[in-house]
Amino acid sequence: MLERINQVNDIKKLVPEEYPILANEIRCFLLEHISKNGGHLGSNLGTVELTMALHLALDLPKDKIIFDVGHQSYTHKILTGRKDGFKNLRQFGGGSGFPRPNEDETDLVIGGHSSTSISSALGFATARELKGTDETIVAVIGDGALSGGMAYEALNNVGRLKKNFIIILNDNNMSISENVGNMSRYLNQLRVGHAYNDLKENVKKTLMSIPKIGPELTERIKRYKNGIKQIVLPPGMWFEEMGLNYIGPIDGHDIKRLKETIEAVKEIDEPIVLHVVTKKGFGYPIAEKYPEKFHGVSPFELETGKAKKKKEKADYTDVFSSKLVKLAKENEKIVAISAAMPSGTGLNRFQEEYPNRFFDVGIAEEHAVTFAGGLAAAGMKPVVAVYSTFLQRAYDQMIHDICIQKLPVVLAVDRSGLVGADGETHQGIFDTSFLTSIPNMTVMAPKNRYELAKMLEFAVEYYDGPLAIKYPRGTAYTGLKEHLAPIEIGKSEVIKTGDHTVAILAVGSMVEEAVKTVDYLGERGINATLVNVRFVSPIDKQCILEQAKSHALLVTMEETVEQGSFGQKVATLLMKEELGKEGVKCQFMNFGIPDTFVSHGAPNVLKEHLGLTGDSMGEKIANKIKTMR
Amino acid sequence: MLERINQVNDIKKLVPEEYPILANEIRCFLLEHISKNGGHLGSNLGTVELTMALHLALDLPKDKIIFDVGHQSYTHKILTGRKDGFKNLRQFGGGSGFPRPNEDETDLVIGGHSSTSISSALGFATARELKGTDETIVAVIGDGALSGGMAYEALNNVGRLKKNFIIILNDNNMSISENVGNMSRYLNQLRVGHAYNDLKENVKKTLMSIPKIGPELTERIKRYKNGIKQIVLPPGMWFEEMGLNYIGPIDGHDIKRLKETIEAVKEIDEPIVLHVVTKKGFGYPIAEKYPEKFHGVSPFELETGKAKKKKEKADYTDVFSSKLVKLAKENEKIVAISAAMPSGTGLNRFQEEYPNRFFDVGIAEEHAVTFAGGLAAAGMKPVVAVYSTFLQRAYDQMIHDICIQKLPVVLAVDRSGLVGADGETHQGIFDTSFLTSIPNMTVMAPKNRYELAKMLEFAVEYYDGPLAIKYPRGTAYTGLKEHLAPIEIGKSEVIKTGDHTVAILAVGSMVEEAVKTVDYLGERGINATLVNVRFVSPIDKQCILEQAKSHALLVTMEETVEQGSFGQKVATLLMKEELGKEGVKCQFMNFGIPDTFVSHGAPNVLKEHLGLTGDSMGEKIANKIKTMR
Repeated sequence: MLERINQVNDIKKLVPEEYPILANEIRCFLLEHISKNGGHLGSNLGTVELTMALHLALDLPKDKIIFDVGHQSYTHKILTGRKDGFKNLRQFGGGSGFPRPNEDETDLVIGGHSSTSISSALGFATARELKGTDETIVAVIGDGALSGGMAYEALNNVGRLKKNFIIILNDNNMSISENVGNMSRYLNQLRVGHAYNDLKENVKKTLMSIPKIGPELTERIKRYKNGIKQIVLPPGMWFEEMGLNYIGPIDGHDIKRLKETIEAVKEIDEPIVLHVVTKKGFGYPIAEKYPEKFHGVSPFELETGKAKKKKEKADYTDVFSSKLVKLAKENEKIVAISAAMPSGTGLNRFQEEYPNRFFDVGIAEEHAVTFAGGLAAAGMKPVVAVYSTFLQRAYDQMIHDICIQKLPVVLAVDRSGLVGADGETHQGIFDTSFLTSIPNMTVMAPKNRYELAKMLEFAVEYYDGPLAIKYPRGTAYTGLKEHLAPIEIGKSEVIKTGDHTVAILAVGSMVEEAVKTVDYLGERGINATLVNVRFVSPIDKQCILEQAKSHALLVTMEETVEQGSFGQKVATLLMKEELGKEGVKCQFMNFGIPDTFVSHGAPNVLKEHLGLTGDSMGEKIANKIKTMR
Repeated sequence: MLERINQVNDIKKLVPEEYPILANEIRCFLLEHISKNGGHLGSNLGTVELTMALHLALDLPKDKIIFDVGHQSYTHKILTGRKDGFKNLRQFGGGSGFPRPNEDETDLVIGGHSSTSISSALGFATARELKGTDETIVAVIGDGALSGGMAYEALNNVGRLKKNFIIILNDNNMSISENVGNMSRYLNQLRVGHAYNDLKENVKKTLMSIPKIGPELTERIKRYKNGIKQIVLPPGMWFEEMGLNYIGPIDGHDIKRLKETIEAVKEIDEPIVLHVVTKKGFGYPIAEKYPEKFHGVSPFELETGKAKKKKEKADYTDVFSSKLVKLAKENEKIVAISAAMPSGTGLNRFQEEYPNRFFDVGIAEEHAVTFAGGLAAAGMKPVVAVYSTFLQRAYDQMIHDICIQKLPVVLAVDRSGLVGADGETHQGIFDTSFLTSIPNMTVMAPKNRYELAKMLEFAVEYYDGPLAIKYPRGTAYTGLKEHLAPIEIGKSEVIKTGDHTVAILAVGSMVEEAVKTVDYLGERGINATLVNVRFVSPIDKQCILEQAKSHALLVTMEETVEQGSFGQKVATLLMKEELGKEGVKCQFMNFGIPDTFVSHGAPNVLKEHLGLTGDSMGEKIANKIKTMR
């Protein structure tokens, strides 16, 4: 049946009896491709019927669907004729794992980060009212995304609308890991509310039917607020009190009912929250059982659910995770905070060991950072582990609630640099720019696994102020293990002193590439100096100037955009300090990410593409040296 | 009586009959000093009794009070022995207008930006539970601040606490201007709820007392949810459904009742929201009548409320405001968005002219930017007017929801550079760093009022992509009005060509200072070249390289921190492009804000202090030139 679905609205040619068959075929298609190439599995299996129902009930592309955290848009991609993209999904040049307006006109906004959909959809709805058109606008948002503050900011503004506006709350009682917070508990109450409601109804009827005592009884119960809630409160009152109409909860795997409900709510000229309950991983029992593990997956065996390639070496996340657990054993002030990513950041181990000192705050990076500031001001030593791309959310909080007061918060910035398959929305290529712009923020990057452990120890045990350690995704580098110079604030580490031709200053992950560059140059008779930068802020002025004076060419290497980069700091230092004196006027090259967004693709493929491999940089340096002679 | 209040807890020596007298004296003290020096008036007059009650009911400094947007902490400052700071409040070297931990141990966190207090307080409360101490922790948050998403993120995490935790909702039905959104309407319902409740009670009793029809009637009304809410819902259900206990609303000017209530809620070992209704400007009738005007004030006459110094010349905000209104007349696609600052950003005029195209989203910068992205994706031309310091909140949204898709959103970045009296938390000195780090973001800065108007026209009418125009607080520069070169993307404007000694590249507000520098140098026989940079991103490489080739010294001037600055971009360009060739190797100086936070003080005083006046920079340049000869 899937072969009949080749463009938008082809699904409307099916008869209702065929819907479940198509749903099944889509599920098989998803399992086949995601097990082969990796991708987001659980959320996509959970939203097959919901997405089909949306396509059936709406008039696309006139009507607009905005997916929050769009990694659950795979069925939408299939229904809009993009099956082919799954052959090399999330690979360089292949289909994106997120909605992309340049892929299809039904993809309206990039949706990679969480909690943005209601704001975006409200933009579309407002434009509709100003233009006087009548399309239906739907935001599809997960219950996890509802813990993000900007979703609430948007809900607070929805009441302005006088026309139809549909927020579909795709509720699987999960963000990526277990959902947290009061809102989550609240939704759970609603979710189980149906059976409950019948009971309440009975209780109430019974009470009220007693002519004289009834009112008095009800009155007495009213004093116990929970009591009165159980008796007379319609479900969804939280939303109702926010000025939204609430409908639900309804079964998110019943296509027919979903379709009819969406068709019905389309007719209501007011904002509506439609609460749909789905099951993450639906139809693939292993994923239903282990929803966190099957949120985003590497290629795996369909029969067993086991990853095809076993992780052989520890990645940086593992190193961080085990070191922090060790440090926390000795130091009771250490507390750890995650924004809905305990497993991704490796804090799940900390959580197991020290449940009272671990805080998963939900998808709420702003709160996470300011909460850490409060903890630090009260004498604790908080470690916030967060992906580089999500830390962008807390830029103001780092300035305002951490750095002005120089509070000793440690930011463990995971997935710094190129992250690969998630693409533009998730690359961690801005952290040096935004972190180093903040006064009082110390920023470090380790060259290998051993140095990450040392840096974490330095941050937690010896340093008293805001400090970020940024480290990349993937296998932790184990080379250069003999280089163990003690960590000293603002000091680089010279790995190798060459002759006077070229000195390479490499940041974090790029030290590994720089070693290859040094080899490449060595094979061509160039004996390069290699410096492990360690501190991106403050920079090691003395070391940089020494290298500049003693070498004809100074080269910086880093995995970040140029604007605000370490390279720019070095160039500025050279211009300010060097040229005014009679010192050496060395040449300069900086390698990094060009100032553009970087699409999806394996990190090594992207590095190749961007000319950031050891050999590629070596070749350019060698050519530069030729022109200098 | 005020003379008896010289340190924390002195207030406890008063007898209850003296409380109103002290309140009155504090009010007179505040009026006297704020009318003389300026400051935040309305919010401080509104919280005199609440702050007194907190000091009476709590055990300071053991107990902790965290003020949200701490500009309402003046009474707290008085009660902790800091009357003297009011003599030169918010002036350079004088008392800060916000809580500052380095001023007093009862000031726990910097509170300048909105909606942070619950997160910070939750940090203190969590630390308390881990340490096993028993202090009371209170967050004082305004209803306006409750529209910020991170306040909700924090509320969502409060339920974790098992002990006492007090959130005082200081509700004056205002943020700075009129409050917006569903939450605001909701609070209004609660506020008027008391009288209302009696009515509801009667309605209900009447209904219920009818033996047989009663239940049926109630049942029918239940179908109309508003009906049922009015009949049986206890107030504060929104908070209750978030897992918080709600108490209130209570009169925020009744010290005795406030004190008793706080003492009572201290004993409850659960999170509590205490809803206190205050009146902004209370006790000063002119401020009560015009609360927005008296939120933050310049020195004014106490009798009339009139500003002592009348604004004689237009400031940049005025220029922006009137130009946008004009442009919007011709272009119906223009819509304007403010985050609770329609008056501060000058959008109030737009609001009056085009109410349907104006959106005040509350204190919700994240939503504001993503909402603008949605509007732009739907074909509108949104202009978001926002203070530089508050735009920090939306860094991720600019990347994720605007720039990846190159959506044509115009950011009018007001208060860029040194803002003066508000100090560290409000200086707009990071915008070049964070804005230029984002690919696809064009960033402009006008030299004078005429250029701001031209740039706005360029942004709205001729440019199709993300664009920010940053302009400073204060009187708009009217010099150089004859320099009207058309705006061209990425192109600077040469104001004056001198000899080959020095070329000055000045950004925005610093062009005015640079003119003075040119004069200073001219008087000393140095004929400087002056370039108006116009585009901070993308930079005008051709112009910069030309100036570098034809001058011995290149100087940059800007009102931002060095890391990520225009100066760093210029230095990098010179290092990359110049030194590899046989071209001129010019010297380099960059003037800007050092990489530190800048405290409060008048902008001109701060500029003097930082060496950023025309003469001061001229002197340094002249000295540098001497060493070069």
